[in-house]
Amino acid sequence: MHLEITSLSNPRLKQLVALRRRRARERLSVTLVEGYEELVLALDAGVRPKELYFCPEFGRHDQGVVERATASGAEVLRLSRAAFEKVAYRESPDGWLAVVPAVADVLTSLRIAPDSLLLVCEAVEKPGNIGAILRTADAAGVAAVLAADPVIDWGNPNLVRASKGTIFSVPVASGTSDDVLRWLDEHAVRLVATTPGTDTGLTDVDLTGAVAIAVGSEMGGLSAAFLAAAQARVKIPMFGRINSLNVATAAAIAVYEAVRQRSTGAATM
Amino acid sequence: MHLEITSLSNPRLKQLVALRRRRARERLSVTLVEGYEELVLALDAGVRPKELYFCPEFGRHDQGVVERATASGAEVLRLSRAAFEKVAYRESPDGWLAVVPAVADVLTSLRIAPDSLLLVCEAVEKPGNIGAILRTADAAGVAAVLAADPVIDWGNPNLVRASKGTIFSVPVASGTSDDVLRWLDEHAVRLVATTPGTDTGLTDVDLTGAVAIAVGSEMGGLSAAFLAAAQARVKIPMFGRINSLNVATAAAIAVYEAVRQRSTGAATM
Repeated sequence: MHLEITSLSNPRLKQLVALRRRRARERLSVTLVEGYEELVLALDAGVRPKELYFCPEFGRHDQGVVERATASGAEVLRLSRAAFEKVAYRESPDGWLAVVPAVADVLTSLRIAPDSLLLVCEAVEKPGNIGAILRTADAAGVAAVLAADPVIDWGNPNLVRASKGTIFSVPVASGTSDDVLRWLDEHAVRLVATTPGTDTGLTDVDLTGAVAIAVGSEMGGLSAAFLAAAQARVKIPMFGRINSLNVATAAAIAVYEAVRQRSTGAATM
Repeated sequence: MHLEITSLSNPRLKQLVALRRRRARERLSVTLVEGYEELVLALDAGVRPKELYFCPEFGRHDQGVVERATASGAEVLRLSRAAFEKVAYRESPDGWLAVVPAVADVLTSLRIAPDSLLLVCEAVEKPGNIGAILRTADAAGVAAVLAADPVIDWGNPNLVRASKGTIFSVPVASGTSDDVLRWLDEHAVRLVATTPGTDTGLTDVDLTGAVAIAVGSEMGGLSAAFLAAAQARVKIPMFGRINSLNVATAAAIAVYEAVRQRSTGAATM
Protein backbone atom coordinates (compact mmCIF):
# COMPACT_ATOMS: atom_id res chain seq x y z
CA MET A 1 0.00 0.00 0.00
CA HIS A 2 1.04 3.55 -0.63
CA LEU A 3 0.80 6.60 1.54
CA GLU A 4 -2.29 8.54 0.63
CA ILE A 5 -2.73 12.30 0.69
CA THR A 6 -6.28 13.42 1.27
CA SER A 7 -5.77 16.74 3.06
CA LEU A 8 -5.84 19.64 0.65
CA SER A 9 -3.56 21.58 3.00
CA ASN A 10 -0.78 18.98 2.72
CA PRO A 11 2.35 21.03 1.92
CA ARG A 12 3.37 18.50 -0.74
CA LEU A 13 0.46 19.59 -2.91
CA LYS A 14 1.56 23.21 -2.71
CA GLN A 15 5.09 22.22 -3.72
CA LEU A 16 3.74 20.38 -6.75
CA VAL A 17 1.69 23.35 -7.85
CA ALA A 18 4.78 25.54 -7.47
CA LEU A 19 6.56 23.40 -10.09
CA ARG A 20 4.38 24.92 -12.77
CA ARG A 21 6.71 27.89 -12.49
CA ARG A 22 9.89 27.68 -14.52
CA ARG A 23 12.06 29.09 -11.74
CA ALA A 24 10.88 26.46 -9.29
CA ARG A 25 11.54 23.69 -11.82
CA GLU A 26 15.01 24.98 -12.61
CA ARG A 27 15.96 25.33 -8.95
CA LEU A 28 15.23 21.65 -8.41
CA SER A 29 16.22 20.47 -11.92
CA VAL A 30 12.92 18.69 -12.39
CA THR A 31 10.08 18.49 -14.88
CA LEU A 32 6.43 17.61 -14.32
CA VAL A 33 4.87 14.88 -16.42
CA GLU A 34 1.12 14.70 -16.37
CA GLY A 35 -0.98 12.07 -18.10
CA TYR A 36 -0.82 8.32 -18.37
CA GLU A 37 0.42 8.08 -21.95
CA GLU A 38 3.12 10.70 -21.50
CA LEU A 39 4.30 8.98 -18.32
CA VAL A 40 4.48 5.56 -20.00
CA LEU A 41 6.48 7.03 -22.87
CA ALA A 42 8.85 8.68 -20.39
CA LEU A 43 9.32 5.37 -18.56
CA ASP A 44 9.86 3.58 -21.88
CA ALA A 45 12.52 6.17 -22.72
CA GLY A 46 14.39 5.34 -19.52
CA VAL A 47 13.19 8.21 -17.33
CA ARG A 48 13.36 7.41 -13.61
CA PRO A 49 10.68 9.45 -11.78
CA LYS A 50 11.56 10.98 -8.44
CA GLU A 51 7.94 11.14 -7.34
CA LEU A 52 4.78 9.57 -8.69
CA TYR A 53 1.28 10.71 -7.76
CA PHE A 54 -1.68 8.67 -8.85
CA CYS A 55 -5.40 8.63 -8.25
CA PRO A 56 -7.35 5.56 -9.40
CA GLU A 57 -10.63 7.44 -8.98
CA PHE A 58 -10.17 8.91 -12.47
CA GLY A 59 -10.68 5.44 -13.90
CA ARG A 60 -7.31 5.06 -15.62
CA HIS A 61 -5.46 2.91 -13.09
CA ASP A 62 -2.54 0.71 -14.12
CA GLN A 63 -0.78 -1.05 -11.28
CA GLY A 64 2.06 -1.97 -13.64
CA VAL A 65 3.04 1.68 -14.01
CA VAL A 66 3.00 2.15 -10.25
CA GLU A 67 5.29 -0.85 -9.93
CA ARG A 68 7.65 0.34 -12.66
CA ALA A 69 7.98 3.73 -11.00
CA THR A 70 8.50 2.13 -7.60
CA ALA A 71 11.14 -0.22 -8.99
CA SER A 72 13.01 2.70 -10.53
CA GLY A 73 13.27 4.39 -7.16
CA ALA A 74 10.33 6.81 -7.18
CA GLU A 75 8.50 7.87 -4.08
CA VAL A 76 4.92 6.86 -4.82
CA LEU A 77 1.92 8.58 -3.28
CA ARG A 78 -1.75 8.02 -3.83
CA LEU A 79 -3.94 11.13 -3.90
CA SER A 80 -7.62 11.56 -3.21
CA ARG A 81 -9.61 12.89 -6.15
CA ALA A 82 -9.83 16.36 -4.61
CA ALA A 83 -6.11 16.39 -3.87
CA PHE A 84 -5.27 15.32 -7.42
CA GLU A 85 -7.52 17.97 -8.90
CA LYS A 86 -5.63 20.54 -6.88
CA VAL A 87 -2.27 19.59 -8.39
CA ALA A 88 -3.44 18.69 -11.91
CA TYR A 89 -2.50 21.15 -14.60
CA ARG A 90 -4.82 19.80 -17.27
CA GLU A 91 -8.48 20.55 -17.53
CA SER A 92 -9.35 16.86 -17.70
CA PRO A 93 -6.82 15.05 -15.52
CA ASP A 94 -6.48 11.28 -15.78
CA GLY A 95 -4.96 10.63 -12.37
CA TRP A 96 -1.27 10.46 -13.26
CA LEU A 97 1.42 13.00 -12.37
CA ALA A 98 5.14 12.54 -11.87
CA VAL A 99 8.14 14.64 -10.96
CA VAL A 100 11.07 13.55 -13.11
CA PRO A 101 14.63 14.80 -13.56
CA ALA A 102 14.91 17.69 -16.00
CA VAL A 103 15.97 16.52 -19.45
CA ALA A 104 19.67 16.74 -20.16
CA ASP A 105 20.43 19.91 -22.06
CA VAL A 106 24.12 20.55 -22.49
CA LEU A 107 25.12 21.52 -25.97
CA THR A 108 28.78 20.82 -25.34
CA SER A 109 28.11 17.21 -24.39
CA LEU A 110 25.64 16.48 -27.20
CA ARG A 111 26.95 13.62 -29.32
CA ILE A 112 25.53 12.76 -32.72
CA ALA A 113 26.24 10.00 -35.18
CA PRO A 114 27.81 10.89 -38.55
CA ASP A 115 25.33 12.08 -41.19
CA SER A 116 22.70 12.90 -38.59
CA LEU A 117 19.63 14.94 -39.37
CA LEU A 118 19.06 17.73 -36.81
CA LEU A 119 16.36 20.29 -36.30
CA VAL A 120 17.00 23.77 -34.92
CA CYS A 121 14.27 26.03 -33.53
CA GLU A 122 15.39 29.62 -33.09
CA ALA A 123 13.34 31.67 -30.62
CA VAL A 124 10.15 29.70 -31.18
CA GLU A 125 7.68 31.15 -28.69
CA LYS A 126 4.77 28.78 -28.29
CA PRO A 127 5.31 25.70 -26.16
CA GLY A 128 2.68 23.89 -28.24
CA ASN A 129 4.76 24.43 -31.38
CA ILE A 130 7.97 23.13 -29.81
CA GLY A 131 6.07 20.15 -28.45
CA ALA A 132 4.65 19.41 -31.90
CA ILE A 133 8.13 19.75 -33.41
CA LEU A 134 9.49 17.21 -30.92
CA ARG A 135 6.70 14.80 -31.79
CA THR A 136 7.54 15.10 -35.48
CA ALA A 137 11.27 14.80 -34.72
CA ASP A 138 10.59 11.57 -32.87
CA ALA A 139 8.55 10.15 -35.75
CA ALA A 140 11.09 11.19 -38.38
CA GLY A 141 14.09 9.84 -36.48
CA VAL A 142 15.73 13.24 -36.04
CA ALA A 143 18.93 12.84 -34.02
CA ALA A 144 18.45 15.95 -31.86
CA VAL A 145 16.42 19.12 -31.58
CA LEU A 146 18.39 22.25 -30.75
CA ALA A 147 16.79 25.38 -29.32
CA ALA A 148 18.67 28.55 -30.26
CA ASP A 149 17.94 31.63 -28.15
CA PRO A 150 15.15 29.69 -26.46
CA VAL A 151 12.18 31.58 -25.07
CA ILE A 152 10.72 28.71 -23.07
CA ASP A 153 12.23 25.83 -21.15
CA TRP A 154 11.98 22.15 -22.07
CA GLY A 155 10.00 21.51 -18.89
CA ASN A 156 7.16 23.88 -19.75
CA PRO A 157 4.01 21.84 -19.01
CA ASN A 158 2.37 22.78 -22.32
CA LEU A 159 5.52 21.76 -24.19
CA VAL A 160 5.68 18.40 -22.39
CA ARG A 161 2.02 17.83 -23.11
CA ALA A 162 2.15 18.80 -26.79
CA SER A 163 5.22 16.60 -27.23
CA LYS A 164 3.17 13.61 -26.04
CA GLY A 165 6.18 12.69 -23.95
CA THR A 166 8.70 12.74 -26.82
CA ILE A 167 10.64 15.44 -24.94
CA PHE A 168 11.98 12.41 -23.03
CA SER A 169 12.94 10.38 -26.08
CA VAL A 170 14.42 12.96 -28.47
CA PRO A 171 17.84 14.36 -27.47
CA VAL A 172 17.66 18.13 -26.98
CA ALA A 173 20.09 20.94 -26.28
CA SER A 174 19.92 24.70 -26.20
CA GLY A 175 22.15 27.74 -26.30
CA THR A 176 22.38 31.21 -27.71
CA SER A 177 22.09 31.44 -31.47
CA ASP A 178 25.85 32.07 -31.56
CA ASP A 179 26.51 28.95 -29.50
CA VAL A 180 24.33 26.83 -31.74
CA LEU A 181 25.88 28.20 -34.93
CA ARG A 182 29.36 27.53 -33.54
CA TRP A 183 28.41 24.00 -32.50
CA LEU A 184 27.05 23.23 -35.97
CA ASP A 185 30.20 24.61 -37.54
CA GLU A 186 32.52 22.67 -35.23
CA HIS A 187 30.62 19.45 -35.94
CA ALA A 188 30.59 20.07 -39.70
CA VAL A 189 26.82 20.05 -39.85
CA ARG A 190 25.44 21.91 -42.86
CA LEU A 191 22.80 24.46 -41.89
CA VAL A 192 19.70 24.71 -44.09
CA ALA A 193 17.56 27.70 -43.15
CA THR A 194 13.85 27.86 -44.00
CA THR A 195 12.73 31.32 -45.04
CA PRO A 196 10.22 32.88 -47.43
CA GLY A 197 13.02 35.19 -48.58
CA THR A 198 14.59 32.99 -51.23
CA ASP A 199 13.73 31.49 -54.60
CA THR A 200 15.35 28.15 -53.80
CA GLY A 201 12.76 25.47 -53.19
CA LEU A 202 13.06 23.03 -50.31
CA THR A 203 13.18 20.10 -52.71
CA ASP A 204 15.98 21.65 -54.79
CA VAL A 205 18.57 21.36 -52.02
CA ASP A 206 20.53 18.31 -50.91
CA LEU A 207 19.33 17.33 -47.44
CA THR A 208 21.44 14.20 -47.08
CA GLY A 209 24.47 13.84 -44.83
CA ALA A 210 24.96 15.85 -41.66
CA VAL A 211 22.27 18.52 -41.96
CA ALA A 212 20.46 20.80 -39.56
CA ILE A 213 17.15 22.23 -40.74
CA ALA A 214 16.36 25.52 -38.99
CA VAL A 215 13.00 27.17 -38.38
CA GLY A 216 12.51 30.54 -36.74
CA SER A 217 10.06 32.28 -34.49
CA GLU A 218 6.33 32.44 -35.22
CA MET A 219 6.38 36.17 -35.87
CA GLY A 220 9.81 36.93 -37.29
CA GLY A 221 11.26 33.73 -38.65
CA LEU A 222 15.01 33.17 -38.44
CA SER A 223 17.41 35.92 -37.38
CA ALA A 224 19.69 37.62 -39.86
CA ALA A 225 22.65 35.88 -38.21
CA PHE A 226 21.11 32.47 -38.79
CA LEU A 227 20.18 33.25 -42.38
CA ALA A 228 23.67 34.55 -43.07
CA ALA A 229 25.38 31.54 -41.51
CA ALA A 230 23.30 29.00 -43.42
CA GLN A 231 24.92 27.01 -46.24
CA ALA A 232 21.49 27.02 -47.95
CA ARG A 233 18.31 29.01 -47.62
CA VAL A 234 15.15 27.26 -48.78
CA LYS A 235 11.50 28.10 -49.00
CA ILE A 236 8.45 25.91 -48.79
CA PRO A 237 6.27 26.80 -51.79
CA MET A 238 3.06 28.59 -50.88
CA PHE A 239 0.16 29.42 -53.13
CA GLY A 240 -2.51 30.62 -50.73
CA ARG A 241 -3.86 33.75 -49.18
CA ILE A 242 -2.07 33.82 -45.86
CA ASN A 243 1.40 32.84 -47.01
CA SER A 244 2.55 31.44 -43.76
CA LEU A 245 2.54 27.92 -42.49
CA ASN A 246 2.53 27.14 -38.80
CA VAL A 247 6.17 26.74 -37.73
CA ALA A 248 5.68 23.14 -36.59
CA THR A 249 4.00 22.32 -39.89
CA ALA A 250 6.85 23.90 -41.83
CA ALA A 251 9.35 21.91 -39.77
CA ALA A 252 7.47 18.68 -40.50
CA ILE A 253 7.35 19.32 -44.24
CA ALA A 254 11.08 20.10 -44.34
CA VAL A 255 12.09 17.17 -42.14
CA TYR A 256 10.05 14.71 -44.16
CA GLU A 257 11.55 16.01 -47.40
CA ALA A 258 14.90 15.17 -45.82
CA VAL A 259 13.58 11.73 -44.86
CA ARG A 260 12.52 11.21 -48.48
CA GLN A 261 15.92 12.19 -49.83
CA ARG A 262 17.71 10.04 -47.26
CA SER A 263 15.63 6.91 -47.77
CA THR A 264 17.18 4.23 -49.91
CA GLY A 265 14.13 4.27 -52.12
CA ALA A 266 14.54 7.92 -53.09
CA ALA A 267 14.73 8.17 -56.83
CA THR A 268 17.07 11.14 -56.93
CA MET A 269 19.40 13.36 -54.88
CA MET B 1 -20.29 57.60 -36.04
CA HIS B 2 -21.54 54.17 -35.08
CA LEU B 3 -24.07 53.11 -32.54
CA GLU B 4 -22.31 52.09 -29.38
CA ILE B 5 -23.35 49.38 -26.96
CA THR B 6 -22.23 49.96 -23.41
CA SER B 7 -24.97 48.22 -21.42
CA LEU B 8 -24.01 44.67 -20.54
CA SER B 9 -27.70 43.77 -20.50
CA ASN B 10 -28.15 44.73 -24.16
CA PRO B 11 -29.91 41.71 -25.71
CA ARG B 12 -27.61 41.87 -28.73
CA LEU B 13 -24.70 40.73 -26.57
CA LYS B 14 -26.64 37.71 -25.39
CA GLN B 15 -27.47 36.80 -28.98
CA LEU B 16 -23.80 36.97 -29.90
CA VAL B 17 -22.79 34.71 -27.03
CA ALA B 18 -25.50 32.26 -28.11
CA LEU B 19 -23.75 31.90 -31.49
CA ARG B 20 -20.98 29.95 -29.81
CA ARG B 21 -23.44 27.06 -29.93
CA ARG B 22 -23.55 25.09 -33.15
CA ARG B 23 -27.33 24.85 -33.15
CA ALA B 24 -27.73 28.61 -32.91
CA ARG B 25 -25.23 29.13 -35.74
CA GLU B 26 -26.93 26.59 -37.97
CA ARG B 27 -30.41 28.03 -37.35
CA LEU B 28 -29.23 31.40 -38.64
CA SER B 29 -26.67 30.06 -41.16
CA VAL B 30 -23.91 32.23 -39.73
CA THR B 31 -20.37 31.92 -38.43
CA LEU B 32 -18.53 34.06 -35.89
CA VAL B 33 -15.16 35.51 -36.87
CA GLU B 34 -13.09 36.86 -34.05
CA GLY B 35 -9.75 38.60 -34.39
CA TYR B 36 -8.40 41.30 -36.66
CA GLU B 37 -6.24 39.11 -38.90
CA GLU B 38 -8.93 36.49 -39.39
CA LEU B 39 -11.45 39.19 -40.25
CA VAL B 40 -9.14 40.83 -42.78
CA LEU B 41 -8.51 37.49 -44.44
CA ALA B 42 -12.25 36.83 -44.59
CA LEU B 43 -12.83 40.24 -46.18
CA ASP B 44 -10.00 39.61 -48.62
CA ALA B 45 -11.63 36.31 -49.54
CA GLY B 46 -14.85 38.12 -50.43
CA VAL B 47 -16.83 37.48 -47.24
CA ARG B 48 -19.54 40.11 -46.61
CA PRO B 49 -20.14 40.39 -42.86
CA LYS B 50 -23.71 40.78 -41.65
CA GLU B 51 -22.62 42.42 -38.40
CA LEU B 52 -19.33 43.89 -37.24
CA TYR B 53 -18.51 44.64 -33.60
CA PHE B 54 -15.37 46.56 -32.78
CA CYS B 55 -13.79 48.11 -29.73
CA PRO B 56 -10.85 50.46 -30.26
CA GLU B 57 -10.00 50.27 -26.57
CA PHE B 58 -8.05 47.06 -27.22
CA GLY B 59 -5.53 49.12 -29.17
CA ARG B 60 -5.92 47.40 -32.55
CA HIS B 61 -8.17 49.85 -34.34
CA ASP B 62 -8.26 50.06 -38.15
CA GLN B 63 -10.84 52.41 -39.59
CA GLY B 64 -10.27 50.92 -43.02
CA VAL B 65 -11.71 47.58 -41.90
CA VAL B 66 -14.74 49.33 -40.41
CA GLU B 67 -15.26 51.07 -43.73
CA ARG B 68 -14.83 47.92 -45.79
CA ALA B 69 -17.41 46.12 -43.65
CA THR B 70 -19.79 49.07 -43.85
CA ALA B 71 -19.39 49.26 -47.62
CA SER B 72 -20.18 45.56 -47.97
CA GLY B 73 -23.46 46.04 -46.16
CA ALA B 74 -22.63 45.08 -42.56
CA GLU B 75 -24.38 46.57 -39.59
CA VAL B 76 -21.51 48.07 -37.60
CA LEU B 77 -21.62 48.55 -33.86
CA ARG B 78 -19.02 49.86 -31.49
CA LEU B 79 -18.78 48.13 -28.12
CA SER B 80 -17.42 49.33 -24.81
CA ARG B 81 -14.52 47.31 -23.48
CA ALA B 82 -16.72 45.57 -20.91
CA ALA B 83 -19.33 44.79 -23.55
CA PHE B 84 -16.69 43.38 -25.90
CA GLU B 85 -15.20 41.23 -23.19
CA LYS B 86 -18.62 39.75 -22.60
CA VAL B 87 -18.99 38.58 -26.21
CA ALA B 88 -15.34 37.72 -26.90
CA TYR B 89 -14.59 34.03 -27.13
CA ARG B 90 -10.82 34.34 -26.92
CA GLU B 91 -8.86 34.79 -23.76
CA SER B 92 -7.05 37.81 -25.16
CA PRO B 93 -9.52 39.61 -27.43
CA ASP B 94 -8.28 42.25 -29.84
CA GLY B 95 -11.54 44.16 -30.29
CA TRP B 96 -12.81 42.61 -33.52
CA LEU B 97 -15.78 40.29 -33.93
CA ALA B 98 -18.06 39.74 -36.88
CA VAL B 99 -21.08 37.66 -37.78
CA VAL B 100 -20.67 36.37 -41.33
CA PRO B 101 -22.68 34.04 -43.55
CA ALA B 102 -21.90 30.37 -42.95
CA VAL B 103 -19.43 29.03 -45.52
CA ALA B 104 -20.99 27.28 -48.49
CA ASP B 105 -20.95 23.53 -47.94
CA VAL B 106 -22.83 21.62 -50.59
CA LEU B 107 -20.99 18.62 -51.92
CA THR B 108 -23.26 18.34 -54.95
CA SER B 109 -22.46 21.87 -56.11
CA LEU B 110 -18.70 21.66 -55.50
CA ARG B 111 -16.85 22.28 -58.77
CA ILE B 112 -13.16 21.53 -59.20
CA ALA B 113 -10.74 22.08 -62.03
CA PRO B 114 -9.29 19.04 -63.82
CA ASP B 115 -6.28 17.48 -62.08
CA SER B 116 -7.11 19.11 -58.77
CA LEU B 117 -5.51 18.11 -55.50
CA LEU B 118 -8.08 17.53 -52.73
CA LEU B 119 -7.84 16.71 -49.07
CA VAL B 120 -10.38 14.58 -47.23
CA CYS B 121 -10.72 14.47 -43.44
CA GLU B 122 -12.81 11.59 -42.20
CA ALA B 123 -14.29 12.03 -38.72
CA VAL B 124 -11.47 14.27 -37.48
CA GLU B 125 -12.54 15.30 -34.00
CA LYS B 126 -10.50 18.29 -32.92
CA PRO B 127 -11.43 21.68 -34.35
CA GLY B 128 -7.81 22.78 -33.97
CA ASN B 129 -6.68 19.96 -36.26
CA ILE B 130 -9.23 20.78 -38.98
CA GLY B 131 -8.28 24.45 -38.72
CA ALA B 132 -4.60 23.57 -39.10
CA ILE B 133 -5.43 21.36 -42.08
CA LEU B 134 -7.27 24.25 -43.75
CA ARG B 135 -4.30 26.53 -43.17
CA THR B 136 -2.00 24.00 -44.83
CA ALA B 137 -4.51 23.46 -47.64
CA ASP B 138 -4.54 27.20 -48.30
CA ALA B 139 -0.75 27.35 -48.40
CA ALA B 140 -0.42 24.29 -50.63
CA GLY B 141 -3.07 25.41 -53.09
CA VAL B 142 -5.40 22.49 -52.36
CA ALA B 143 -8.58 22.88 -54.44
CA ALA B 144 -11.00 21.83 -51.69
CA VAL B 145 -11.14 20.18 -48.28
CA LEU B 146 -13.89 17.60 -47.83
CA ALA B 147 -15.11 16.48 -44.43
CA ALA B 148 -16.44 12.92 -44.45
CA ASP B 149 -18.68 11.94 -41.54
CA PRO B 150 -17.83 15.26 -39.88
CA VAL B 151 -17.91 15.53 -36.12
CA ILE B 152 -17.74 19.31 -35.93
CA ASP B 153 -19.12 22.10 -38.07
CA TRP B 154 -17.07 24.52 -40.17
CA GLY B 155 -18.25 27.39 -37.99
CA ASN B 156 -16.80 26.00 -34.76
CA PRO B 157 -14.99 29.00 -33.21
CA ASN B 158 -11.86 26.96 -32.46
CA LEU B 159 -11.78 25.71 -36.05
CA VAL B 160 -12.18 29.24 -37.44
CA ARG B 161 -9.43 30.45 -35.15
CA ALA B 162 -6.96 27.66 -35.88
CA SER B 163 -7.59 28.12 -39.60
CA LYS B 164 -6.43 31.75 -39.27
CA GLY B 165 -9.39 32.63 -41.45
CA THR B 166 -8.55 30.19 -44.28
CA ILE B 167 -11.96 28.56 -43.71
CA PHE B 168 -13.16 31.51 -45.80
CA SER B 169 -10.66 31.08 -48.63
CA VAL B 170 -10.47 27.30 -49.11
CA PRO B 171 -13.56 25.66 -50.68
CA VAL B 172 -15.05 23.08 -48.33
CA ALA B 173 -17.82 20.51 -48.45
CA SER B 174 -19.01 17.71 -46.24
CA GLY B 175 -21.12 14.60 -46.33
CA THR B 176 -21.31 11.06 -45.06
CA SER B 177 -18.31 8.93 -45.90
CA ASP B 178 -20.48 7.17 -48.48
CA ASP B 179 -21.43 10.49 -50.06
CA VAL B 180 -17.82 11.61 -50.25
CA LEU B 181 -16.63 8.30 -51.71
CA ARG B 182 -19.39 8.45 -54.31
CA TRP B 183 -18.54 12.04 -55.20
CA LEU B 184 -14.86 11.18 -55.66
CA ASP B 185 -15.79 8.24 -57.84
CA GLU B 186 -18.22 10.26 -59.97
CA HIS B 187 -15.60 12.96 -60.49
CA ALA B 188 -12.87 10.43 -61.32
CA VAL B 189 -10.69 11.58 -58.45
CA ARG B 190 -8.21 8.94 -57.30
CA LEU B 191 -8.36 8.35 -53.54
CA VAL B 192 -5.06 7.94 -51.71
CA ALA B 193 -5.59 6.83 -48.11
CA THR B 194 -2.97 7.45 -45.42
CA THR B 195 -2.66 4.59 -42.97
CA PRO B 196 0.04 2.88 -40.94
CA GLY B 197 -1.32 -0.45 -42.20
CA THR B 198 0.59 -0.70 -45.46
CA ASP B 199 4.15 -1.13 -46.67
CA THR B 200 3.73 1.37 -49.50
CA GLY B 201 5.52 4.63 -48.77
CA LEU B 202 3.92 7.98 -49.43
CA THR B 203 6.66 8.89 -51.88
CA ASP B 204 6.25 5.64 -53.87
CA VAL B 205 2.80 6.56 -55.15
CA ASP B 206 1.85 8.89 -58.00
CA LEU B 207 0.13 11.94 -56.50
CA THR B 208 -0.27 13.85 -59.76
CA GLY B 209 -3.54 14.39 -61.58
CA ALA B 210 -6.93 14.43 -59.87
CA VAL B 211 -6.09 13.06 -56.42
CA ALA B 212 -7.70 13.21 -53.00
CA ILE B 213 -5.46 12.52 -50.03
CA ALA B 214 -7.45 11.20 -47.07
CA VAL B 215 -6.63 11.34 -43.36
CA GLY B 216 -8.72 9.80 -40.62
CA SER B 217 -9.70 10.49 -37.05
CA GLU B 218 -7.16 11.16 -34.33
CA MET B 219 -7.87 7.90 -32.53
CA GLY B 220 -8.90 5.42 -35.20
CA GLY B 221 -7.60 6.70 -38.52
CA LEU B 222 -9.61 6.03 -41.65
CA SER B 223 -12.63 3.73 -41.68
CA ALA B 224 -12.51 0.31 -43.31
CA ALA B 225 -14.83 1.61 -46.02
CA PHE B 226 -12.44 4.42 -46.89
CA LEU B 227 -9.41 2.15 -46.87
CA ALA B 228 -11.19 -0.37 -49.07
CA ALA B 229 -12.35 2.25 -51.55
CA ALA B 230 -8.91 3.84 -51.95
CA GLN B 231 -6.96 3.31 -55.17
CA ALA B 232 -3.78 3.47 -53.06
CA ARG B 233 -2.95 3.14 -49.38
CA VAL B 234 0.23 4.88 -48.27
CA LYS B 235 2.12 5.29 -45.03
CA ILE B 236 4.32 8.07 -43.80
CA PRO B 237 7.54 6.44 -42.56
CA MET B 238 8.00 6.60 -38.79
CA PHE B 239 11.07 5.68 -36.81
CA GLY B 240 10.27 6.93 -33.32
CA ARG B 241 8.81 5.81 -30.07
CA ILE B 242 5.25 6.98 -30.35
CA ASN B 243 4.57 6.00 -33.95
CA SER B 244 1.88 8.48 -34.59
CA LEU B 245 2.00 11.90 -36.13
CA ASN B 246 -0.60 14.51 -35.40
CA VAL B 247 -3.28 14.22 -38.09
CA ALA B 248 -2.75 17.78 -39.32
CA THR B 249 1.00 17.16 -39.50
CA ALA B 250 0.45 13.95 -41.46
CA ALA B 251 -1.86 15.80 -43.85
CA ALA B 252 0.76 18.52 -44.37
CA ILE B 253 3.52 16.01 -45.13
CA ALA B 254 1.32 14.15 -47.60
CA VAL B 255 0.01 17.29 -49.32
CA TYR B 256 3.49 18.74 -49.72
CA GLU B 257 4.75 15.48 -51.19
CA ALA B 258 1.98 15.91 -53.75
CA VAL B 259 3.07 19.53 -54.31
CA ARG B 260 6.61 18.29 -54.89
CA GLN B 261 5.51 15.69 -57.42
CA ARG B 262 3.22 18.17 -59.18
CA SER B 263 5.77 20.97 -59.44
CA THR B 264 7.46 21.32 -62.80
CA GLY B 265 10.81 21.06 -61.08
CA ALA B 266 10.16 17.59 -59.72
CA ALA B 267 12.88 15.26 -60.89
CA THR B 268 10.71 12.17 -61.15
CA MET B 269 7.16 10.82 -61.08
